[in-house]
Amino acid sequence: MPHIAELIAVGTELLLGNIANTNAQEISEALSTLGINVFWHTTVGDNPQRLEEVLATARRRADILITTGGLGPTYDDLTKQTVCAAFGRALVPHPEILEDIRTFYETAIHMPMPPNNAQQAELPEDCVVFDNPVGTAPGCAFEAEGVHVLMLPGPPHEMRTMLRRCAVPYLRGLSSEVIVSRDIMTFGMGESAVDQLLHERMARMTNPTLATYAKPFEVRLRATAKAESEEAAQAMLNPVWEMVCETLGDVVYGVDVADLAECCQGLLLQRGMTLATAESCTGGLVSEKITALPGASLVYRGGVVSYWTAVKGSVLEVPQEILDSYGPVSEECARAMAEGVQRITGADLGVSVTGVAGPDPDERGVPVGIVYIGLSTPEGTFCRRTDSGPTRRDRIRGIAANHAFDVVRRYLMGLPINPARLNFSP
Amino acid sequence: MPHIAELIAVGTELLLGNIANTNAQEISEALSTLGINVFWHTTVGDNPQRLEEVLATARRRADILITTGGLGPTYDDLTKQTVCAAFGRALVPHPEILEDIRTFYETAIHMPMPPNNAQQAELPEDCVVFDNPVGTAPGCAFEAEGVHVLMLPGPPHEMRTMLRRCAVPYLRGLSSEVIVSRDIMTFGMGESAVDQLLHERMARMTNPTLATYAKPFEVRLRATAKAESEEAAQAMLNPVWEMVCETLGDVVYGVDVADLAECCQGLLLQRGMTLATAESCTGGLVSEKITALPGASLVYRGGVVSYWTAVKGSVLEVPQEILDSYGPVSEECARAMAEGVQRITGADLGVSVTGVAGPDPDERGVPVGIVYIGLSTPEGTFCRRTDSGPTRRDRIRGIAANHAFDVVRRYLMGLPINPARLNFSP
Repeated sequence: MPHIAELIAVGTELLLGNIANTNAQEISEALSTLGINVFWHTTVGDNPQRLEEVLATARRRADILITTGGLGPTYDDLTKQTVCAAFGRALVPHPEILEDIRTFYETAIHMPMPPNNAQQAELPEDCVVFDNPVGTAPGCAFEAEGVHVLMLPGPPHEMRTMLRRCAVPYLRGLSSEVIVSRDIMTFGMGESAVDQLLHERMARMTNPTLATYAKPFEVRLRATAKAESEEAAQAMLNPVWEMVCETLGDVVYGVDVADLAECCQGLLLQRGMTLATAESCTGGLVSEKITALPGASLVYRGGVVSYWTAVKGSVLEVPQEILDSYGPVSEECARAMAEGVQRITGADLGVSVTGVAGPDPDERGVPVGIVYIGLSTPEGTFCRRTDSGPTRRDRIRGIAANHAFDVVRRYLMGLPINPARLNFSP
Repeated sequence: MPHIAELIAVGTELLLGNIANTNAQEISEALSTLGINVFWHTTVGDNPQRLEEVLATARRRADILITTGGLGPTYDDLTKQTVCAAFGRALVPHPEILEDIRTFYETAIHMPMPPNNAQQAELPEDCVVFDNPVGTAPGCAFEAEGVHVLMLPGPPHEMRTMLRRCAVPYLRGLSSEVIVSRDIMTFGMGESAVDQLLHERMARMTNPTLATYAKPFEVRLRATAKAESEEAAQAMLNPVWEMVCETLGDVVYGVDVADLAECCQGLLLQRGMTLATAESCTGGLVSEKITALPGASLVYRGGVVSYWTAVKGSVLEVPQEILDSYGPVSEECARAMAEGVQRITGADLGVSVTGVAGPDPDERGVPVGIVYIGLSTPEGTFCRRTDSGPTRRDRIRGIAANHAFDVVRRYLMGLPINPARLNFSP
């Protein structure tokens, strides 16, 4: 019988609307891939009595309870105490964890551990300890009366790391089936357009399954297969991958790659080429994304954020006549920016972004949402013009950064820079 | 007695992790401002039996229930039917709403209304109708046995519009208290350190209250007061603000400001000064954060991402002897980078970041986590050395970017660039 899970988020900040419960989404997605049904998400404040009631309800209706939050060192962090009381477990000090936290403070933070962090080293008796390599609060899992209880930290990056490293392997151990997933990444088609092309087939599939997830400014497809062995599951996924590529074409940019920046990093490494960036409206978003990747220095030389028009001239050497005749948001300027940054950094490729992120149109009346991407290469200079419409500033910038990477990717893969059939609607 | 609310989101897509429940955050924030306590968020799938059970629990513990989702025209949209059955209300056709939906299709979508949309025109008997000007599903509110039930649509933009136009006015009519919050922003002290200094006072406070929230690489404190008028609540918050400033000192950088970048933007505007950035390990994160703000071009000229050492020389004009003698991760290089970008962009201030984000130490053996911030100003050049320890790459970069803004802020506020008592632990 498949497991049934309830996710319980603990934190008054969620009930006050200070933050969204993105942890519930991430855990749900992971559990869905493991074939575990999630039937309820519950959020409750830092209040032991209400948490106790929520736990009592949850254990009656689910056999996997996953809490997030309330593991911190402050007085209102009460998840462990309340869970242990509810399940009749003692909370016992773990000297080796105390040592880890002390070491984390001394080596990573260079100060002695504050005394109130000691309570983070207390965990339920007979539990599986989930290490927290990116914070001080460890998590844990235990089984009591047929119910598996997992406690994860609230800060999303700590939760995410522990989910992947500890909670998913623990949960996978509860089932005999092997579940394998592949993320098929696409850029250049909106979710409704992808859904329209694949909807009928997706609806008919039961194992393997295929689902779409809208990520910021791109669409991810997740194919999942259950089988008795990893090999068998992998084999079931190959035809899905082929079907998706055949249906969607070259908007598919990769499988099991995090994003377009990582895709470009891999292609640049393969080709032994380096990249430089010249950014106006994205203001460093493209360079930030590529340098976020470990090993970026093998493929990325540097860039210029030419926010003021004068900087386009003085640093990127865009000819004044281009700035005067065509303006800073123009195909001509995008091309000159890309060529300029390629020249001054000595990179093999220069990519540029210039556009209007809003809220106001540019001085020459170019409307909000218009963005030009330039790409200077050993074979000549290319340009893509995009129009995301008068939407929000962060959206225009995010879409523009993805377009920049997509232009680089298409060049490196020998695909047309500006395919005719793209549909960039959300 | 204050009202107690439970938010109930209905939708299997939430339980599969396809989307995050941002509606809960938006409604919670609105209710918190109205002085309505939100004690639970519950999410349940498109399953009438489980929704019925969730409603039964909710009406026992809350006197305001707000559902989102499940008002659409398809077979799995069952919220109205299930809520009406639970509260013994008939679901009756509203001919004038049917007319609205038909008109919406004809004028906004340019097609005849599909027959299954007719069920969207059915609403509970004797309810307050909430119009939906941006979609087809109307919402509603009714009172039954002392419980107020509100039903809102699931798509966030429809929910948001209806919340603001209909639900908030409906709920305001139920309450007499006003709640006012202020966010006090700090950088330079970890959450535990802040908590240790304020813990005792926070635990004693009931109205106003004070709570800490760890944001990425900084700590926010939220002070909240309930009173009969906005003025009275504001007056209750002034002493809290003063107490926090007195206790934490100049790590407090502002109130009701989003982040350090926005704080710097305000200070630069006030002083009529412009900034430029020279980034190595942060790779554009500083420039990206400041250009994310509308109006950035008034204070930000541009920057250079000098990722390769050669770019520090060729574009930023860092003297080769500095690169040779001290290396790219050094106080000398940070100072020269800041001076270089100030010079080539013509900005009043140049801020630089050079350090080791990892995973490997730099070629000269500088360990992961060491970052130098340079600041070139009309009064001379300053430098801060920071050490976040061998933590994750994104953490080192995020902390370094905040240090860069903090150095700019302190300069513009006339504070010491490197105060003795900072404690930069998480």
